[in-house]
Amino acid sequence: MLRRLDPPSPRLTPARVDRLRSALERALGPSKVQTSSEALFAFAGDESENEPVLPDAAVLASSAADVLAALKVALDEGVPITPRAAGSGKSGGAIPLAGGIALATAGLGRILDIDATELTATVEPGVVLGELHRAVEELGLFYPPDANSLSWCALGGNIAENAGGPRAFKYGVTRDYVLGLDVGLVGGQALTVGRKTKKGVTGYDVAGLLVGSEGTLAVTTRATLRLIPKPELVATLLALFPDVRACGAAVQSILAAGVVPRCIELLDAPTLAAVRAGGVDVDGAARAMLILEVDGVEATTLVEQERVGDACDRAGALSVLVAQSASQRDRLWAARRALSTTTRAMARHKVSEDVVVPRTRIPDLLDEVDRIREKTQIRMLTYGHAGDGNLHVNYLWDDPDAGPRVELGLEMLFRRVVELGGTLTGEHGVGLSKRRFLPLEQSAPLIELQRGLKRVFDPNDLLNPGKVFPEREGHGAC
Amino acid sequence: MLRRLDPPSPRLTPARVDRLRSALERALGPSKVQTSSEALFAFAGDESENEPVLPDAAVLASSAADVLAALKVALDEGVPITPRAAGSGKSGGAIPLAGGIALATAGLGRILDIDATELTATVEPGVVLGELHRAVEELGLFYPPDANSLSWCALGGNIAENAGGPRAFKYGVTRDYVLGLDVGLVGGQALTVGRKTKKGVTGYDVAGLLVGSEGTLAVTTRATLRLIPKPELVATLLALFPDVRACGAAVQSILAAGVVPRCIELLDAPTLAAVRAGGVDVDGAARAMLILEVDGVEATTLVEQERVGDACDRAGALSVLVAQSASQRDRLWAARRALSTTTRAMARHKVSEDVVVPRTRIPDLLDEVDRIREKTQIRMLTYGHAGDGNLHVNYLWDDPDAGPRVELGLEMLFRRVVELGGTLTGEHGVGLSKRRFLPLEQSAPLIELQRGLKRVFDPNDLLNPGKVFPEREGHGAC
Repeated sequence: MLRRLDPPSPRLTPARVDRLRSALERALGPSKVQTSSEALFAFAGDESENEPVLPDAAVLASSAADVLAALKVALDEGVPITPRAAGSGKSGGAIPLAGGIALATAGLGRILDIDATELTATVEPGVVLGELHRAVEELGLFYPPDANSLSWCALGGNIAENAGGPRAFKYGVTRDYVLGLDVGLVGGQALTVGRKTKKGVTGYDVAGLLVGSEGTLAVTTRATLRLIPKPELVATLLALFPDVRACGAAVQSILAAGVVPRCIELLDAPTLAAVRAGGVDVDGAARAMLILEVDGVEATTLVEQERVGDACDRAGALSVLVAQSASQRDRLWAARRALSTTTRAMARHKVSEDVVVPRTRIPDLLDEVDRIREKTQIRMLTYGHAGDGNLHVNYLWDDPDAGPRVELGLEMLFRRVVELGGTLTGEHGVGLSKRRFLPLEQSAPLIELQRGLKRVFDPNDLLNPGKVFPEREGHGAC
Repeated sequence: MLRRLDPPSPRLTPARVDRLRSALERALGPSKVQTSSEALFAFAGDESENEPVLPDAAVLASSAADVLAALKVALDEGVPITPRAAGSGKSGGAIPLAGGIALATAGLGRILDIDATELTATVEPGVVLGELHRAVEELGLFYPPDANSLSWCALGGNIAENAGGPRAFKYGVTRDYVLGLDVGLVGGQALTVGRKTKKGVTGYDVAGLLVGSEGTLAVTTRATLRLIPKPELVATLLALFPDVRACGAAVQSILAAGVVPRCIELLDAPTLAAVRAGGVDVDGAARAMLILEVDGVEATTLVEQERVGDACDRAGALSVLVAQSASQRDRLWAARRALSTTTRAMARHKVSEDVVVPRTRIPDLLDEVDRIREKTQIRMLTYGHAGDGNLHVNYLWDDPDAGPRVELGLEMLFRRVVELGGTLTGEHGVGLSKRRFLPLEQSAPLIELQRGLKRVFDPNDLLNPGKVFPEREGHGAC
């Protein structure tokens, strides 16, 4: 694993843990409070490379009142509290770095309302994204954000991280679909922010600020989400190219033709090699692949499908295939969505970064990946959302001593991304994984200003401490 | 006019005004500083019903450095500073309520870059919205926000107010198109927030927070905006209905057919009567009108146009006309866009509210408008963006003593809007016009939290004081 960057936090004394447990049990009842090491392990980690950290207690909330009660105890007892929904995060956001309370919202799992007329859904934070998709699509509606972990990630985490997914290119990310939120603040104050209507400019955009704040400002207890009509038809194309620059030309040509595909997914040469090694038959001459989807009313979709195919041909595609059935499309996406877990199985260790560069700089980014691979001798696969310039750069290794080389590779990547006019993270959040790199992208005054915003919500730095912002010199984990 | 709600602020003494002028002239040169009453009048008001207030000095900035210099003088001298772009605002946001400096950014009027490949534009805050439209459309690109004042409103104000417009229903509002901002803070600190890429979750969404903050947090000196490909074809339909409930049925039927028109504009019966009185020939049986636009690639647009027409027919439209040429469409829109000024000419006084309700509650809102009209005997016309539930409710009167009746009518409107699950303002902002009504919609803790956010940016309450938040008891205009 990477070097341990955060010194073990000062933990609570056993006497304070006892007191904390008593306070939580009084507030919530004993069945919702866990304190045994075995039970706590389930609340220690996430899907990032960061080492798990055991909380001192876990609260299994099943109502907004439970969430507020736990947030009140946190302030009363002066202990850190770290919210988590499904724990599928990729940046350590749900890791209770400073101990204290892990506040699990998976038990708030109800879809409270789907309004097919107003095109809204009201949900609790523990609702699994894929379940929401199914529920709204049965009614002819559509909730576009589609993080690849959709089979188990939950909306509370999606909101905390402002989750995206392949369809974000056309449809935007979670923030674009959150209208209003009920949240709890440290201390147990409930707050309703945002609205139920799509439009509205009353006051500051506090709901938008909370989306993507990585569980450091408030804890969602309910969300009103915007829905759209379900597209009538989806067409999926798979195009193989001799190199990644030809892919870039195809993407530009598609956009110049006035088509905004809902997805433009890129797989680079090493990823294609891994796919081939996994037994999938892919043309040996192909050094890059695009998976493209267009959707909408039937007439549009057929026109757009043709334009996308033509653009790929003009850009020098080796082949362009159109999925002939829903099951063919599902198989294609199952393979794409599984890339995150299949690559994980390829080595003992994996770090997946999710940088963003301006779309036309993707080839420059991949050149840098080649340099990093050469310099660090770490295996690297790159794939992701080419339309957005949002690529997942994966570092894979077995050597337990490779940590410093990986760290060098990460720093090279982030420096180049910022040089190219990009950003450190497009989907996963900063969390614990990238906080040490934040100053590469953001100025010291901007970081200080954000710390000031954090203090407005949480003056005692009890909510998910140690995330997003770089460690201060000599200040421990906070 | 309405009762004067804000007591005249404590103004600077003549000696302090002299000192302020000297400080500004030292920092900016004398040609950029105005202090004569005649010159200052141009910076005193906006397009709202609020009384103009003269600033003590005006700065005519023509560069980011000028903006920062003025913001530094404001802090050094401890005087209020109120930014303004074109002064087209409808909620008093640009009125220098507490005197001090009016900071005019109209002189920062350059489109710095249009990147047709990355689909971005980089602009200064004084660029007129309609000029940006022309510049990007010449290149086959599109910037959707289209406030009706587009011929003279400027992007700095659009960003401050999170401007919308008819096309917002399909394409969203200004916040959806602002990627990154360069801003100045009180004290003269420059800050770059957001990014150049469409996607990105690094840190809190500070750029999103600044959009719509009504010039109370920071002053924009440069913005990177997202563009999209220009739609290939636009089709405009005009449908007349026997009543407003039939309009609502048509809108639901259109959405159920999977069509998202870019505009759905509603004109109510009194507005139609005014249009008729203005010499336009409109079927006497019609009590409501929809102007609908669909756009996209040609094939889609034709399909969608047909579906929209069918939906209107099914809902009982008296007639559905399709604009047969671009000039016919332009004439239609010229009439719609002119409604704001033509209604203003209909009476000596006009207040235009821009409330939002859930789409299906529009008939309930119009019922309330009938009740208000009856109770207050104020002439009222309602029209606007029916797709978003964002209606412009106009109060027109000549009687100089009607103020209390208008105030009653406003309060009735806002109370009903909140009951219906709506919001006080969809486009114009709270500013000065609606701050006394903010507590009808937002809880005291939420208002306090927003005041806390304001203090992070502007601890001395010098930037555009007296806006958005209700007056505190005994605290004068701040």
